[in-house]
Amino acid sequence: MSEVILTLNAGSSSMKFAAYRSAADAPERIMRGQVAGLGTEPTLVLKTGGQNETRAISAGTHAEAMPVILDAIAPFIDGARVVGVGHRIVHGGPDVATHRRLDAALMEELAGYEPLAPLHQPHNLAAARAAMEVFPDAVQVGCFDTAFHRTHGWVNDAFAIPRKYYDRGVRRYGFHGLSYDYITRRLATDYPTLAGRRIVIAHLGNGASMCGVRDGKSVATTMGFSPLDGLPMGTRSGQIDPGVLLYLMETECMDAKELAQMLYRESGLLGLSGISNDMRTLLASHDPHAAQAVDYFVFRVRREIGAMSAVLGGIDGVVFCGGIGENAPVIRGRVLDGLQYLGIEVDAGANDHNAVEIGRGAVPVLVIPTDEEFVIADAVQDTLRSYD
Amino acid sequence: MSEVILTLNAGSSSMKFAAYRSAADAPERIMRGQVAGLGTEPTLVLKTGGQNETRAISAGTHAEAMPVILDAIAPFIDGARVVGVGHRIVHGGPDVATHRRLDAALMEELAGYEPLAPLHQPHNLAAARAAMEVFPDAVQVGCFDTAFHRTHGWVNDAFAIPRKYYDRGVRRYGFHGLSYDYITRRLATDYPTLAGRRIVIAHLGNGASMCGVRDGKSVATTMGFSPLDGLPMGTRSGQIDPGVLLYLMETECMDAKELAQMLYRESGLLGLSGISNDMRTLLASHDPHAAQAVDYFVFRVRREIGAMSAVLGGIDGVVFCGGIGENAPVIRGRVLDGLQYLGIEVDAGANDHNAVEIGRGAVPVLVIPTDEEFVIADAVQDTLRSYD
Repeated sequence: MSEVILTLNAGSSSMKFAAYRSAADAPERIMRGQVAGLGTEPTLVLKTGGQNETRAISAGTHAEAMPVILDAIAPFIDGARVVGVGHRIVHGGPDVATHRRLDAALMEELAGYEPLAPLHQPHNLAAARAAMEVFPDAVQVGCFDTAFHRTHGWVNDAFAIPRKYYDRGVRRYGFHGLSYDYITRRLATDYPTLAGRRIVIAHLGNGASMCGVRDGKSVATTMGFSPLDGLPMGTRSGQIDPGVLLYLMETECMDAKELAQMLYRESGLLGLSGISNDMRTLLASHDPHAAQAVDYFVFRVRREIGAMSAVLGGIDGVVFCGGIGENAPVIRGRVLDGLQYLGIEVDAGANDHNAVEIGRGAVPVLVIPTDEEFVIADAVQDTLRSYD
Repeated sequence: MSEVILTLNAGSSSMKFAAYRSAADAPERIMRGQVAGLGTEPTLVLKTGGQNETRAISAGTHAEAMPVILDAIAPFIDGARVVGVGHRIVHGGPDVATHRRLDAALMEELAGYEPLAPLHQPHNLAAARAAMEVFPDAVQVGCFDTAFHRTHGWVNDAFAIPRKYYDRGVRRYGFHGLSYDYITRRLATDYPTLAGRRIVIAHLGNGASMCGVRDGKSVATTMGFSPLDGLPMGTRSGQIDPGVLLYLMETECMDAKELAQMLYRESGLLGLSGISNDMRTLLASHDPHAAQAVDYFVFRVRREIGAMSAVLGGIDGVVFCGGIGENAPVIRGRVLDGLQYLGIEVDAGANDHNAVEIGRGAVPVLVIPTDEEFVIADAVQDTLRSYD
C-alpha cells in the first residue's frame, strides 16, 4: 500500500474520518473514527474490526484535530502517503451537480453559501482549510449533499414566493445527496432491473428525508431550502405551516435565533415526546407521548411515500436506509402498512430480520445500508485518476 | 313567505350576503350580493337572476353596511321577517366541531381566537356583532371553516414542535370546512356508493386546499394552522420550508409583518408569475413565467393528491370544486395526467365541457360546484328548527 485516501465529515464540534486504500474496482476502507467534543471535552473514537476505542485528546478546533487524526491513522497505513482528501460539504449552491476538486475559487464560492447553511457550511469549510494545510500536496475534493438533487425540474426547485428570491438562491436544494447517490449506485449494480425505474428512497436517521428517483436521477426530495423541511427528525420539525412561525413571532416574541433553536434542536421526536430524539428510546418507552411521537413519524413517512409516488407518476420500488431505516423493523412495517394500494406488501419475517428484501407485493421493498463515506472516497479516487 | 334567513361572509373590507327562504327540504336562495370597498370606495353588487347590478354606497364599516344590506334585500323578501342570520367565521378553535348558536359566551371565546386568524377572525366577529344589533330577535349562528376538520386524529392535528405549543393551540386546524361539508353532503345524496369511501376533495380557488375524507369525515387537509399552508394559491405561498423564513429574517431583516405581507399577499401564482394571481390570466398569457406558475400549481395539486391517497390508504374518488376546480379543464386535466397509477383516467371530452363526471378510469372523478352559503343557510334553518 503506497497511497491512501482520507475522508472527512466535519460538524460544529466533531469530525468523522476514514482512511481508504485505492483499489482497481473501488476504494477499500482501512479504518475509521471520530473526533468529538471539540471545544469542550474532546475525545477520539477509533473504529476498527468491530472494536471501538475511545480516548481523551487535546484539540479545540478542526485544525487542531488534524494532527490527532494523522496520528490515529498512522498505525493502519504503514507509512503510506495521503494522496487525496475528500470532504463532505453540505452546500454546493444552485449549480454544483457533482463532486469537485477544491481550489481557491471554489472555496470562495462555497464560503458564499454559508448563509444558506449556517449550522454546517462554516464547519465543513474550516475542516477543508485545515486539511489543505496539513496535506498541501494531496488532492482535495468536495462532495456536496445538494449535488445529487440538481437534476430537479423547476417545480421541485422553486417555492411559490416572489421570483426575486429564487434568483437570490431560495430554492429547494435538498440534502442527503451522498446517501442517495450511494443507494442508486447499489441499485445499478445489484438490482439492474430497478435502476432505471421509479424508486422512493427513505433515508431515515436522526436526520431524515426522502427522495424520488427516476432513471437513477433525483426528481424530488422532501428537504428543501434547509435541512428542516419534510419529514420529522430527531430534533428537527420537518414540514410546518409558515403561519406557525409568524404566530410565534407575534405572540411569543420569538426571533430568528430562538425559532432556529426550537426548530433545529427542540422539535421532531424530542419535541413531541418530551423524552428523547432517539427512536430506540421511544420504541422502548411506555409513555403515551413517546407513542404519539412515533405515530407522527410513521404517518409523515407514509404520507410522503404517497406524495413521492405522485411526483414519479407511480412507484416501482422502495428503499429504506439510515439508522432507523436499516434497523427499525417496527417502523418500516408500520410505514408500509396502508400502502397496499401501491402494490406494497410487507414480508413480516424478512422485515423482522432486517433482510435486504422485505416486500412480498408487486413493488419490491429493500433495506440497503447506506455508505456516504464510500461515495466520498470514490469521488477522490475518481478525481485522482482523472489526473493520471 | 314570512320568514327569511340571511347569510353573511365578512372579509376585511367586504361583506357577501344572501337571503334564503326556509323550505321543508332545504333553504332556497332568493338573491345574493356583496358590499365591497368598505373604507375606500364602497359599492354594492346585487346578483339576481344572472344579472349583476353595481352601485356606489356610503358605508365605512361592517356595521354601516348592515342597513345597506337590509335595503338591498327588502325588495326581494316582500316584508318577511329575518328570523335567522348565519355567519361564516373562519376559526372555531380546537373544540368547535359544528355550527353553533352565537351567544355572548361563544362570542367571547371566538374573540380569543383572533390571534390564530388575525386577518379574518376580527372582521367575521365585527359583522356578527353588527348583525346582532340590527336583528336583535333573530337567531345568530356561527359556521366555522375549521369545524369540519375536528375529526382529525393526532397525527393530522399536531406539528412536530415542542408539545407545549400544541397545548397552547398550535394545531393543524384546516380551513374551507364549509365547502368540504357541502361536497360530502352532495356525495351522500347524489353518489351514495361513494359517500362512505375514501375521497380526495380539491377546493381550488383563489384560496386552495385539499381534504382527504373517509366515511364523510375529514381525515386530513393540506392547510394547517393558518390558511398559508399546503397548496399554492392566488397570492399565498402554500407549503414552504421554515428555513426560508429564518433565512429571510437573517439576511433580509424581514419581520413578522413583512413576512406575512409577502406570504399572504405577494406569493403563490402572483409571486411566481410576476403577472397575476388569476389563473385565467395566467392560462391566457404567453409569458414563460406565467407558464411556470401554472406548472408549479398543477404539480403541487398532483403531489398532494398522492399524499392524501397515502393518508387514506387508497383512493376511491376525486372531487374538484372552487373557481379553478369547477372552471379550468386544462388544470384538472394536467393535474390528473400522471395519476393513472391510482386508477385515475380523464375523459378529455367530459373534462373540456366541465361535466360532472370527468373520469373514465376505475376511480370516479367529479366536478361539483361548491356552495358554502347553502351550508350556512342550512345551519340557520337547522338551528331554528331545534327551537320549534
